[in-house]
Amino acid sequence: MSMTIYGKNPAEEILKTDKAIFKAYIMEDTNYDIIKQLKKRDVEITRIKKHEFKKKFLGNHQGIVMEVEDYKLYDLKEFLAELNLDKNPLVVMLDGITDPHNFGAIIRSCEAGGVAGIIIPKNRSVKITGTVAKVSSGALEHVKIVEVTNLRNTLETLKQNRFWSVGADLSAEQSYHSIDVTTPLVLVIGSEGKGISNIIRNSVDYNVKIEMAGSINSLNASVSAGIIIFDILRKKTE
Amino acid sequence: MSMTIYGKNPAEEILKTDKAIFKAYIMEDTNYDIIKQLKKRDVEITRIKKHEFKKKFLGNHQGIVMEVEDYKLYDLKEFLAELNLDKNPLVVMLDGITDPHNFGAIIRSCEAGGVAGIIIPKNRSVKITGTVAKVSSGALEHVKIVEVTNLRNTLETLKQNRFWSVGADLSAEQSYHSIDVTTPLVLVIGSEGKGISNIIRNSVDYNVKIEMAGSINSLNASVSAGIIIFDILRKKTE
Repeated sequence: MSMTIYGKNPAEEILKTDKAIFKAYIMEDTNYDIIKQLKKRDVEITRIKKHEFKKKFLGNHQGIVMEVEDYKLYDLKEFLAELNLDKNPLVVMLDGITDPHNFGAIIRSCEAGGVAGIIIPKNRSVKITGTVAKVSSGALEHVKIVEVTNLRNTLETLKQNRFWSVGADLSAEQSYHSIDVTTPLVLVIGSEGKGISNIIRNSVDYNVKIEMAGSINSLNASVSAGIIIFDILRKKTE
Repeated sequence: MSMTIYGKNPAEEILKTDKAIFKAYIMEDTNYDIIKQLKKRDVEITRIKKHEFKKKFLGNHQGIVMEVEDYKLYDLKEFLAELNLDKNPLVVMLDGITDPHNFGAIIRSCEAGGVAGIIIPKNRSVKITGTVAKVSSGALEHVKIVEVTNLRNTLETLKQNRFWSVGADLSAEQSYHSIDVTTPLVLVIGSEGKGISNIIRNSVDYNVKIEMAGSINSLNASVSAGIIIFDILRKKTE
């Protein structure tokens, strides 16, 4: 299985890994250091004229497109086996995020915030596409994505593994500042429009909200995630 | 001067204000409450067939497009005159943000975070377009945007008005948690690629960084802004 990667940053991040690169398409007159590295790794490079390249690859490709080994998804068991629970890891669970831009931005926020893994549901979620990889600016290569069949059962399994579970929910009473960071923690982020689902809201140990000071008070899902994750990080390092 | 507004949320937000609505285009079979409100305000409504509408208006219009009174920009003097300095307001200055999606997302984070105003440079910045309004999800109607000719001079004027100035800069030594929130404050956010400009970095009272825990450690500009703004809000309300 392969996936298509667009742009310079994602290409550079792939090159830092030992992931197989099957093919690279480079636009004429593009002169990146990446090309040298691709040659070193004996990757098949196809040079394409500017106007043909733009016809063949739409979107923000920056003159480089690669076919690479598909992104490795973890299953829960494998993920938990590699996790050091004594370090009180933070895991993020996405409930109902469907927009690839939001998904990519959340991956980025999670990577920078030291999140141990992102749990996504197999059926109702976005897939890991070139857009997701592009928006994540290479962060995708450094975060474990765990695909599960059922979010609620996964919460139960995590609880049995010493995790506390917290939902980010606009209607919660408690502030996100009250999150106890001295345990393994799974933070559930819902979709922008609908928030987290009822079944998950009722399954987590507690829900928290971000107090706001405006009149619209709507935050982008990746911004909400970033705010909570970095507040957890602050408390861990304080 | 008029501007074009796309989508349901922005339309609803405009209707909450007394801004002039010159014209509304509604796609056939669209049935929003908004339409009733438009009729009450005697707005000229043009109903357009689905396929023609989609040809005429590209992007995420949700079946409603309106021509409205242009967004009111403040000048610095007028903005400062309306500001209550005793409340230690937070003002955000954007240095080099050019992407309308980022600008819209930052407006949204600022609105939810209780930011008193957003300062943008006249020449090097994005303009307030329909895309910006759409991405801001209506937040644009509730945040003052201040357009200035020179960011550095503006910093000086703000300093003369009891403001402390802080730059968000990846290379800073100090943490963003160290920001003193007990004074009027202007926070400068730079572009994603380049950060804040040298001249501004050297003009602010101090620079702060967001400590990160990953290996890519790159955050979207609106996420960075959200993290710092909400940490300031936390300290103000604690």
